[in-house]
Amino acid sequence: MTQNIYDSPAFFEGYSQLPRSLEGLDGAPEWPALSALLPPLAGQDIVDLGCGYGWFSRWAVEHGARSVLAIDVSQKMLERAVAINNDPRITYQCSDLEGLQLPQASFTLAYSSLVLHYIRDLGALFRSIHDALLPGGQWLFSIEHPIYMASLHPDWVVDAQGGRSWPVDHYQIEGPRSTNWLSDGVIKQHRTLGTLINLLIASGFTLKHVNEWGPDDEDLKRRPALADEVHRPMMLIVAASR
Amino acid sequence: MTQNIYDSPAFFEGYSQLPRSLEGLDGAPEWPALSALLPPLAGQDIVDLGCGYGWFSRWAVEHGARSVLAIDVSQKMLERAVAINNDPRITYQCSDLEGLQLPQASFTLAYSSLVLHYIRDLGALFRSIHDALLPGGQWLFSIEHPIYMASLHPDWVVDAQGGRSWPVDHYQIEGPRSTNWLSDGVIKQHRTLGTLINLLIASGFTLKHVNEWGPDDEDLKRRPALADEVHRPMMLIVAASR
Repeated sequence: MTQNIYDSPAFFEGYSQLPRSLEGLDGAPEWPALSALLPPLAGQDIVDLGCGYGWFSRWAVEHGARSVLAIDVSQKMLERAVAINNDPRITYQCSDLEGLQLPQASFTLAYSSLVLHYIRDLGALFRSIHDALLPGGQWLFSIEHPIYMASLHPDWVVDAQGGRSWPVDHYQIEGPRSTNWLSDGVIKQHRTLGTLINLLIASGFTLKHVNEWGPDDEDLKRRPALADEVHRPMMLIVAASR
Repeated sequence: MTQNIYDSPAFFEGYSQLPRSLEGLDGAPEWPALSALLPPLAGQDIVDLGCGYGWFSRWAVEHGARSVLAIDVSQKMLERAVAINNDPRITYQCSDLEGLQLPQASFTLAYSSLVLHYIRDLGALFRSIHDALLPGGQWLFSIEHPIYMASLHPDWVVDAQGGRSWPVDHYQIEGPRSTNWLSDGVIKQHRTLGTLINLLIASGFTLKHVNEWGPDDEDLKRRPALADEVHRPMMLIVAASR
Protein backbone atom coordinates (compact mmCIF):
# COMPACT_ATOMS: atom_id res chain seq x y z
CA MET A 1 0.00 0.00 0.00
CA THR A 2 0.92 3.65 -0.24
CA GLN A 3 3.03 5.01 2.62
CA ASN A 4 0.47 6.30 5.10
CA ILE A 5 2.47 9.18 6.45
CA TYR A 6 -0.65 10.90 7.77
CA ASP A 7 -0.92 8.42 10.62
CA SER A 8 2.62 9.09 11.84
CA PRO A 9 2.45 11.30 14.95
CA ALA A 10 4.95 13.97 13.81
CA PHE A 11 3.33 14.36 10.41
CA PHE A 12 -0.20 14.41 11.78
CA GLU A 13 0.76 17.02 14.36
CA GLY A 14 2.39 19.20 11.70
CA TYR A 15 -0.46 18.71 9.27
CA SER A 16 -3.05 19.65 11.86
CA GLN A 17 -1.35 23.08 12.24
CA LEU A 18 -1.42 23.99 8.52
CA PRO A 19 -3.75 26.83 7.52
CA ARG A 20 -5.62 24.43 5.23
CA SER A 21 -6.25 22.14 8.21
CA LEU A 22 -7.21 24.87 10.68
CA GLU A 23 -9.16 27.14 8.34
CA GLY A 24 -10.47 24.55 5.89
CA LEU A 25 -10.92 25.48 2.25
CA ASP A 26 -10.26 29.19 2.82
CA GLY A 27 -6.84 28.29 4.19
CA ALA A 28 -5.84 26.88 0.80
CA PRO A 29 -4.70 29.63 -1.58
CA GLU A 30 -5.59 27.53 -4.63
CA TRP A 31 -9.20 27.01 -3.53
CA PRO A 32 -10.66 29.88 -5.62
CA ALA A 33 -9.00 28.50 -8.77
CA LEU A 34 -10.01 24.93 -7.93
CA SER A 35 -13.61 25.72 -7.01
CA ALA A 36 -14.04 27.85 -10.17
CA LEU A 37 -13.75 24.58 -12.12
CA LEU A 38 -16.47 22.76 -10.16
CA PRO A 39 -19.79 22.13 -11.89
CA PRO A 40 -22.95 23.37 -10.11
CA LEU A 41 -23.19 21.05 -7.11
CA ALA A 42 -26.99 20.73 -6.82
CA GLY A 43 -27.91 17.05 -6.98
CA GLN A 44 -24.35 15.83 -7.54
CA ASP A 45 -23.18 12.47 -6.24
CA ILE A 46 -19.53 12.97 -5.38
CA VAL A 47 -16.56 10.82 -4.52
CA ASP A 48 -13.91 12.78 -2.57
CA LEU A 49 -10.59 10.93 -2.89
CA GLY A 50 -8.21 11.63 -0.02
CA CYS A 51 -10.81 13.67 1.87
CA GLY A 52 -8.58 14.48 4.86
CA TYR A 53 -10.58 16.39 7.47
CA GLY A 54 -13.62 16.44 5.18
CA TRP A 55 -13.70 20.19 4.56
CA PHE A 56 -14.59 19.80 0.89
CA SER A 57 -17.15 17.05 1.52
CA ARG A 58 -19.01 19.22 4.00
CA TRP A 59 -18.79 22.29 1.78
CA ALA A 60 -20.17 20.23 -1.11
CA VAL A 61 -23.27 19.00 0.70
CA GLU A 62 -23.87 22.48 2.10
CA HIS A 63 -23.81 23.71 -1.51
CA GLY A 64 -26.41 21.25 -2.72
CA ALA A 65 -24.58 17.98 -3.38
CA ARG A 66 -26.87 15.00 -2.80
CA SER A 67 -24.21 12.65 -1.47
CA VAL A 68 -20.48 12.39 -0.88
CA LEU A 69 -18.45 9.23 -0.49
CA ALA A 70 -15.38 10.59 1.31
CA ILE A 71 -12.38 8.27 1.29
CA ASP A 72 -9.07 8.53 3.10
CA VAL A 73 -6.30 6.07 3.98
CA SER A 74 -5.78 7.66 7.39
CA GLN A 75 -8.01 6.56 10.24
CA LYS A 76 -6.82 9.58 12.25
CA MET A 77 -7.87 11.99 9.54
CA LEU A 78 -11.29 10.34 9.30
CA GLU A 79 -11.83 10.48 13.07
CA ARG A 80 -11.19 14.19 12.91
CA ALA A 81 -13.44 14.52 9.83
CA VAL A 82 -16.31 12.80 11.63
CA ALA A 83 -15.74 15.05 14.65
CA ILE A 84 -15.73 18.39 12.83
CA ASN A 85 -17.37 17.85 9.43
CA ASN A 86 -20.03 15.25 9.89
CA ASP A 87 -23.24 15.30 7.87
CA PRO A 88 -25.80 12.58 7.10
CA ARG A 89 -25.18 13.05 3.37
CA ILE A 90 -21.47 12.21 3.78
CA THR A 91 -20.19 8.64 4.10
CA TYR A 92 -16.64 8.50 5.42
CA GLN A 93 -14.68 5.42 4.39
CA CYS A 94 -11.17 4.30 5.28
CA SER A 95 -9.46 2.88 2.18
CA ASP A 96 -6.13 3.04 0.42
CA LEU A 97 -6.47 4.83 -2.94
CA GLU A 98 -3.89 2.35 -4.25
CA GLY A 99 -5.96 -0.56 -5.56
CA LEU A 100 -9.22 1.22 -4.70
CA GLN A 101 -12.43 -0.48 -5.76
CA LEU A 102 -15.33 1.89 -6.47
CA PRO A 103 -18.92 1.13 -7.47
CA GLN A 104 -19.43 1.38 -11.26
CA ALA A 105 -21.15 4.38 -12.90
CA SER A 106 -22.26 5.81 -9.57
CA PHE A 107 -20.93 9.36 -9.34
CA THR A 108 -21.35 12.60 -11.27
CA LEU A 109 -18.19 14.17 -9.85
CA ALA A 110 -14.86 12.85 -8.62
CA TYR A 111 -12.72 15.26 -6.62
CA SER A 112 -9.25 15.04 -5.12
CA SER A 113 -7.08 17.67 -3.49
CA LEU A 114 -3.30 17.25 -3.24
CA VAL A 115 -3.06 13.50 -2.69
CA LEU A 116 -2.42 11.94 -6.11
CA HIS A 117 1.34 12.59 -5.89
CA TYR A 118 1.45 9.86 -3.22
CA ILE A 119 -0.04 7.23 -5.56
CA ARG A 120 2.24 4.77 -7.34
CA ASP A 121 -0.21 3.22 -9.80
CA LEU A 122 -2.01 6.33 -10.97
CA GLY A 123 -3.20 4.67 -14.18
CA ALA A 124 -5.14 2.07 -12.20
CA LEU A 125 -6.72 4.77 -10.04
CA PHE A 126 -7.66 6.89 -13.09
CA ARG A 127 -9.34 3.88 -14.73
CA SER A 128 -11.21 3.09 -11.52
CA ILE A 129 -12.42 6.71 -11.29
CA HIS A 130 -13.41 6.71 -14.97
CA ASP A 131 -15.54 3.60 -14.49
CA ALA A 132 -17.05 4.96 -11.26
CA LEU A 133 -18.32 8.09 -13.04
CA LEU A 134 -21.50 8.30 -15.03
CA PRO A 135 -21.05 9.30 -18.69
CA GLY A 136 -20.49 13.04 -18.78
CA GLY A 137 -19.24 12.96 -15.20
CA GLN A 138 -16.49 15.36 -14.14
CA TRP A 139 -13.07 14.65 -12.64
CA LEU A 140 -11.41 17.57 -10.88
CA PHE A 141 -8.15 17.28 -9.00
CA SER A 142 -5.12 19.13 -7.74
CA ILE A 143 -1.68 17.57 -7.42
CA GLU A 144 1.80 18.83 -6.63
CA HIS A 145 3.28 20.07 -9.88
CA PRO A 146 5.95 17.82 -11.44
CA ILE A 147 8.29 20.82 -11.57
CA TYR A 148 7.86 21.26 -7.83
CA MET A 149 8.65 17.59 -7.21
CA ALA A 150 11.35 16.65 -9.71
CA SER A 151 14.54 17.93 -8.08
CA LEU A 152 16.63 15.80 -5.75
CA HIS A 153 17.46 19.02 -3.82
CA PRO A 154 14.16 20.90 -3.93
CA ASP A 155 15.18 24.23 -2.46
CA TRP A 156 15.53 27.74 -3.86
CA VAL A 157 18.81 28.56 -5.55
CA VAL A 158 20.40 32.02 -5.57
CA ASP A 159 22.34 32.81 -8.72
CA ALA A 160 25.39 35.06 -9.19
CA GLN A 161 23.13 38.09 -9.77
CA GLY A 162 21.22 37.43 -6.52
CA GLY A 163 18.20 36.17 -8.44
CA ARG A 164 16.12 33.43 -6.88
CA SER A 165 15.17 30.41 -8.92
CA TRP A 166 13.62 27.01 -8.38
CA PRO A 167 15.86 24.11 -9.41
CA VAL A 168 14.73 21.54 -11.94
CA ASP A 169 16.81 18.39 -12.28
CA HIS A 170 16.14 14.70 -12.96
CA TYR A 171 12.83 15.80 -14.47
CA GLN A 172 12.76 12.95 -16.99
CA ILE A 173 13.51 10.34 -14.34
CA GLU A 174 10.19 9.30 -12.92
CA GLY A 175 9.74 7.52 -9.61
CA PRO A 176 9.86 8.11 -5.87
CA ARG A 177 11.11 11.35 -4.32
CA SER A 178 11.81 11.47 -0.63
CA THR A 179 11.30 14.85 1.04
CA ASN A 180 11.25 16.16 4.55
CA TRP A 181 7.92 17.95 4.78
CA LEU A 182 6.41 17.98 8.27
CA SER A 183 8.29 14.76 8.96
CA ASP A 184 11.33 13.03 7.45
CA GLY A 185 11.16 10.67 4.50
CA VAL A 186 7.81 11.55 3.01
CA ILE A 187 7.66 9.61 -0.28
CA LYS A 188 6.05 11.22 -3.31
CA GLN A 189 5.85 9.83 -6.83
CA HIS A 190 7.31 12.06 -9.53
CA ARG A 191 5.85 11.81 -13.01
CA THR A 192 6.27 14.24 -15.87
CA LEU A 193 3.29 16.39 -16.69
CA GLY A 194 3.13 14.63 -20.05
CA THR A 195 2.82 11.24 -18.37
CA LEU A 196 0.06 12.54 -16.11
CA ILE A 197 -1.97 13.92 -19.02
CA ASN A 198 -1.41 10.85 -21.18
CA LEU A 199 -2.56 8.58 -18.33
CA LEU A 200 -5.75 10.61 -18.09
CA ILE A 201 -6.40 10.42 -21.83
CA ALA A 202 -5.55 6.70 -21.95
CA SER A 203 -8.06 6.13 -19.11
CA GLY A 204 -10.83 7.52 -21.32
CA PHE A 205 -11.00 11.09 -20.04
CA THR A 206 -11.28 14.23 -22.16
CA LEU A 207 -9.10 17.02 -20.84
CA LYS A 208 -11.06 20.22 -20.17
CA HIS A 209 -8.75 22.61 -18.33
CA VAL A 210 -5.26 22.78 -16.84
CA ASN A 211 -4.28 25.40 -14.26
CA GLU A 212 -0.69 25.62 -13.05
CA TRP A 213 -1.65 27.50 -9.96
CA GLY A 214 0.10 30.74 -9.09
CA PRO A 215 -0.97 33.69 -6.94
CA ASP A 216 -2.74 36.70 -8.45
CA ASP A 217 -2.40 40.30 -7.16
CA GLU A 218 -5.21 39.77 -4.67
CA ASP A 219 -3.56 36.61 -3.28
CA LEU A 220 -0.25 38.44 -2.90
CA LYS A 221 -1.91 41.26 -0.98
CA ARG A 222 -3.59 38.82 1.41
CA ARG A 223 -0.60 36.48 1.73
CA PRO A 224 2.74 38.18 0.93
CA ALA A 225 4.56 34.89 1.62
CA LEU A 226 3.13 33.59 -1.66
CA ALA A 227 5.49 35.85 -3.64
CA ASP A 228 7.80 32.86 -4.27
CA GLU A 229 4.99 31.10 -6.11
CA VAL A 230 5.20 33.63 -8.95
CA HIS A 231 8.45 31.94 -9.89
CA ARG A 232 7.45 28.31 -10.11
CA PRO A 233 4.37 26.21 -10.76
CA MET A 234 3.74 24.61 -7.38
CA MET A 235 0.42 22.91 -7.96
CA LEU A 236 -1.42 21.58 -10.94
CA ILE A 237 -5.20 21.68 -11.16
CA VAL A 238 -6.83 19.53 -13.83
CA ALA A 239 -10.45 19.25 -14.97
CA ALA A 240 -11.49 16.38 -17.21
CA SER A 241 -14.72 14.66 -18.16
CA ARG A 242 -15.74 11.07 -18.82
CA MET B 1 4.38 41.19 -37.26
CA THR B 2 6.50 38.66 -35.42
CA GLN B 3 10.21 39.44 -35.20
CA ASN B 4 11.69 37.74 -38.27
CA ILE B 5 15.04 36.83 -36.80
CA TYR B 6 15.62 34.18 -39.46
CA ASP B 7 16.34 36.83 -42.08
CA SER B 8 19.06 38.49 -39.98
CA PRO B 9 22.47 37.47 -41.39
CA ALA B 10 24.03 36.33 -38.10
CA PHE B 11 21.04 34.21 -37.13
CA PHE B 12 20.64 32.72 -40.58
CA GLU B 13 24.32 31.85 -40.71
CA GLY B 14 24.16 30.20 -37.27
CA TYR B 15 20.91 28.41 -38.07
CA SER B 16 22.29 27.01 -41.30
CA GLN B 17 25.04 25.27 -39.31
CA LEU B 18 22.73 23.45 -36.87
CA PRO B 19 22.51 19.67 -37.20
CA ARG B 20 18.78 19.99 -37.89
CA SER B 21 19.55 22.32 -40.79
CA LEU B 22 22.41 20.32 -42.25
CA GLU B 23 21.07 16.82 -41.65
CA GLY B 24 17.35 17.55 -41.87
CA LEU B 25 14.95 15.53 -39.73
CA ASP B 26 17.60 13.07 -38.55
CA GLY B 27 19.54 15.98 -37.07
CA ALA B 28 16.69 16.69 -34.66
CA PRO B 29 16.82 14.41 -31.61
CA GLU B 30 13.07 14.78 -31.01
CA TRP B 31 12.15 13.62 -34.52
CA PRO B 32 11.50 9.96 -33.53
CA ALA B 33 9.10 11.08 -30.78
CA LEU B 34 7.44 13.64 -33.04
CA SER B 35 7.08 11.37 -36.06
CA ALA B 36 5.66 8.57 -33.88
CA LEU B 37 2.60 10.80 -33.39
CA LEU B 38 2.00 11.37 -37.11
CA PRO B 39 -0.99 9.65 -38.71
CA PRO B 40 -0.30 7.48 -41.81
CA LEU B 41 0.61 10.06 -44.44
CA ALA B 42 -0.89 8.43 -47.54
CA GLY B 43 -3.31 10.87 -49.15
CA GLN B 44 -2.92 13.55 -46.47
CA ASP B 45 -3.24 17.24 -47.33
CA ILE B 46 -0.84 18.97 -44.98
CA VAL B 47 -0.10 22.52 -43.90
CA ASP B 48 3.47 22.87 -42.56
CA LEU B 49 3.61 26.01 -40.40
CA GLY B 50 7.09 27.49 -40.19
CA CYS B 51 8.52 25.02 -42.69
CA GLY B 52 12.10 26.36 -42.63
CA TYR B 53 14.21 24.50 -45.14
CA GLY B 54 11.28 22.23 -46.03
CA TRP B 55 12.75 19.01 -44.67
CA PHE B 56 9.46 17.82 -43.22
CA SER B 57 7.43 18.86 -46.28
CA ARG B 58 9.65 16.83 -48.56
CA TRP B 59 9.70 13.86 -46.20
CA ALA B 60 5.88 13.98 -46.05
CA VAL B 61 5.33 13.84 -49.82
CA GLU B 62 7.96 11.13 -50.12
CA HIS B 63 5.94 9.17 -47.55
CA GLY B 64 2.68 9.45 -49.42
CA ALA B 65 1.21 12.86 -48.58
CA ARG B 66 -0.87 14.22 -51.46
CA SER B 67 -0.01 17.87 -50.95
CA VAL B 68 1.82 20.20 -48.58
CA LEU B 69 1.29 23.92 -48.18
CA ALA B 70 4.60 24.93 -46.60
CA ILE B 71 4.60 28.36 -44.99
CA ASP B 72 7.45 30.40 -43.56
CA VAL B 73 7.95 34.06 -42.71
CA SER B 74 11.54 34.01 -43.94
CA GLN B 75 12.16 34.53 -47.64
CA LYS B 76 15.73 33.28 -47.17
CA MET B 77 14.54 30.04 -45.63
CA LEU B 78 12.11 29.50 -48.47
CA GLU B 79 14.77 30.14 -51.12
CA ARG B 80 16.85 27.45 -49.52
CA ALA B 81 13.82 25.15 -49.25
CA VAL B 82 13.09 25.53 -52.95
CA ALA B 83 16.75 24.87 -53.73
CA ILE B 84 17.15 21.68 -51.69
CA ASN B 85 13.66 20.31 -51.00
CA ASN B 86 11.53 21.13 -54.00
CA ASP B 87 8.73 18.87 -55.14
CA PRO B 88 5.68 19.48 -57.36
CA ARG B 89 3.41 18.38 -54.49
CA ILE B 90 4.80 21.13 -52.21
CA THR B 91 3.68 24.76 -52.43
CA TYR B 92 6.07 27.09 -50.60
CA GLN B 93 4.46 30.31 -49.39
CA CYS B 94 5.99 33.32 -47.63
CA SER B 95 3.62 34.48 -44.86
CA ASP B 96 3.77 35.62 -41.27
CA LEU B 97 2.07 33.07 -39.00
CA GLU B 98 0.86 36.05 -36.94
CA GLY B 99 -2.51 36.94 -38.50
CA LEU B 100 -2.26 34.04 -40.95
CA GLN B 101 -5.27 33.41 -43.19
CA LEU B 102 -5.74 29.80 -44.27
CA PRO B 103 -8.35 28.24 -46.55
CA GLN B 104 -11.25 26.71 -44.57
CA ALA B 105 -11.60 22.94 -44.02
CA SER B 106 -8.83 22.14 -46.50
CA PHE B 107 -6.26 20.05 -44.63
CA THR B 108 -6.17 16.68 -42.89
CA LEU B 109 -2.99 17.46 -40.94
CA ALA B 110 -1.40 20.62 -39.59
CA TYR B 111 2.23 20.36 -38.52
CA SER B 112 4.66 22.79 -36.92
CA SER B 113 8.16 22.24 -35.55
CA LEU B 114 9.68 24.65 -33.00
CA VAL B 115 8.21 27.94 -34.20
CA LEU B 116 5.11 28.58 -32.07
CA HIS B 117 7.17 30.09 -29.25
CA TYR B 118 7.76 33.09 -31.52
CA ILE B 119 4.02 33.78 -31.94
CA ARG B 120 2.35 36.46 -29.85
CA ASP B 121 -1.31 35.75 -30.61
CA LEU B 122 -1.28 31.98 -30.39
CA GLY B 123 -5.05 31.79 -29.78
CA ALA B 124 -5.75 33.41 -33.16
CA LEU B 125 -3.37 31.00 -34.90
CA PHE B 126 -4.91 27.96 -33.15
CA ARG B 127 -8.40 29.04 -34.24
CA SER B 128 -7.19 29.59 -37.79
CA ILE B 129 -5.62 26.11 -37.84
CA HIS B 130 -8.74 24.56 -36.36
CA ASP B 131 -10.91 26.08 -39.10
CA ALA B 132 -8.41 25.09 -41.81
CA LEU B 133 -8.61 21.42 -40.80
CA LEU B 134 -11.30 19.03 -41.92
CA PRO B 135 -13.32 17.44 -39.08
CA GLY B 136 -11.17 14.70 -37.57
CA GLY B 137 -8.03 16.43 -38.83
CA GLN B 138 -4.86 16.22 -36.75
CA TRP B 139 -2.70 19.01 -35.32
CA LEU B 140 0.81 18.02 -34.32
CA PHE B 141 3.40 20.48 -33.12
CA SER B 142 6.55 20.93 -31.11
CA ILE B 143 7.39 24.09 -29.17
CA GLU B 144 10.08 25.11 -26.73
CA HIS B 145 8.92 23.99 -23.30
CA PRO B 146 7.67 26.78 -20.99
CA ILE B 147 10.12 25.53 -18.34
CA TYR B 148 12.95 26.00 -20.81
CA MET B 149 11.82 29.54 -21.61
CA ALA B 150 10.57 31.01 -18.34
CA SER B 151 13.76 32.11 -16.59
CA LEU B 152 15.25 35.57 -17.04
CA HIS B 153 18.70 33.94 -16.70
CA PRO B 154 18.27 30.68 -18.56
CA ASP B 155 21.52 28.94 -17.77
CA TRP B 156 22.46 25.90 -15.70
CA VAL B 157 22.99 26.48 -11.99
CA VAL B 158 25.44 24.52 -9.85
CA ASP B 159 24.30 24.06 -6.25
CA ALA B 160 26.40 23.73 -3.08
CA GLN B 161 26.60 19.93 -3.56
CA GLY B 162 27.89 20.35 -7.12
CA GLY B 163 24.56 19.26 -8.58
CA ARG B 164 23.44 20.78 -11.83
CA SER B 165 19.95 22.17 -12.15
CA TRP B 166 17.94 24.24 -14.59
CA PRO B 167 16.56 27.44 -13.09
CA VAL B 168 12.86 28.25 -13.11
CA ASP B 169 11.82 31.78 -12.22
CA HIS B 170 9.09 34.20 -13.33
CA TYR B 171 7.19 31.17 -14.58
CA GLN B 172 3.78 32.72 -13.89
CA ILE B 173 4.69 35.96 -15.67
CA GLU B 174 3.84 35.44 -19.31
CA GLY B 175 5.19 37.56 -22.13
CA PRO B 176 8.34 38.17 -24.14
CA ARG B 177 11.69 36.64 -23.24
CA SER B 178 14.81 37.96 -24.92
CA THR B 179 17.60 35.43 -25.38
CA ASN B 180 20.89 35.30 -27.18
CA TRP B 181 20.62 32.17 -29.30
CA LEU B 182 22.63 32.32 -32.54
CA SER B 183 22.23 36.11 -32.45
CA ASP B 184 21.43 38.68 -29.75
CA GLY B 185 17.94 39.67 -28.74
CA VAL B 186 15.90 36.79 -30.10
CA ILE B 187 12.38 37.37 -28.76
CA LYS B 188 10.30 34.39 -27.67
CA GLN B 189 6.86 34.42 -26.07
CA HIS B 190 6.63 32.66 -22.73
CA ARG B 191 3.29 31.12 -21.78
CA THR B 192 2.61 28.60 -19.06
CA LEU B 193 1.91 25.07 -20.18
CA GLY B 194 -1.60 25.48 -18.75
CA THR B 195 -2.24 28.51 -20.95
CA LEU B 196 -1.01 26.64 -24.00
CA ILE B 197 -3.27 23.65 -23.38
CA ASN B 198 -6.28 25.82 -22.49
CA LEU B 199 -5.82 27.83 -25.72
CA LEU B 200 -5.89 24.58 -27.68
CA ILE B 201 -9.05 23.37 -25.95
CA ALA B 202 -10.74 26.77 -26.28
CA SER B 203 -9.94 26.70 -30.02
CA GLY B 204 -12.00 23.53 -30.35
CA PHE B 205 -9.25 20.91 -30.27
CA THR B 206 -9.30 17.65 -28.33
CA LEU B 207 -5.96 16.91 -26.73
CA LYS B 208 -4.58 13.49 -27.71
CA HIS B 209 -1.01 13.29 -26.44
CA VAL B 210 1.63 15.39 -24.70
CA ASN B 211 5.33 14.52 -24.80
CA GLU B 212 7.81 16.58 -22.80
CA TRP B 213 10.71 15.40 -24.86
CA GLY B 214 13.79 13.96 -23.20
CA PRO B 215 16.50 11.60 -24.47
CA ASP B 216 16.22 7.84 -24.03
CA ASP B 217 19.19 5.49 -23.58
CA GLU B 218 19.61 5.11 -27.33
CA ASP B 219 19.68 8.91 -27.80
CA LEU B 220 22.28 9.26 -25.06
CA LYS B 221 24.50 6.66 -26.67
CA ARG B 222 24.31 8.41 -30.06
CA ARG B 223 24.57 11.95 -28.68
CA PRO B 224 26.24 12.10 -25.22
CA ALA B 225 25.77 15.90 -25.20
CA LEU B 226 22.06 15.30 -24.65
CA ALA B 227 22.75 14.17 -21.06
CA ASP B 228 21.64 17.61 -19.79
CA GLU B 229 18.20 17.03 -21.25
CA VAL B 230 17.50 14.33 -18.68
CA HIS B 231 17.26 17.14 -16.15
CA ARG B 232 14.77 19.49 -17.77
CA PRO B 233 11.91 19.38 -20.25
CA MET B 234 13.34 21.28 -23.21
CA MET B 235 10.67 20.72 -25.80
CA LEU B 236 6.99 20.02 -25.74
CA ILE B 237 5.31 17.88 -28.39
CA VAL B 238 1.52 18.02 -28.59
CA ALA B 239 -0.97 16.05 -30.66
CA ALA B 240 -4.58 17.19 -30.90
CA SER B 241 -7.50 16.60 -33.19
CA ARG B 242 -10.30 18.77 -34.56
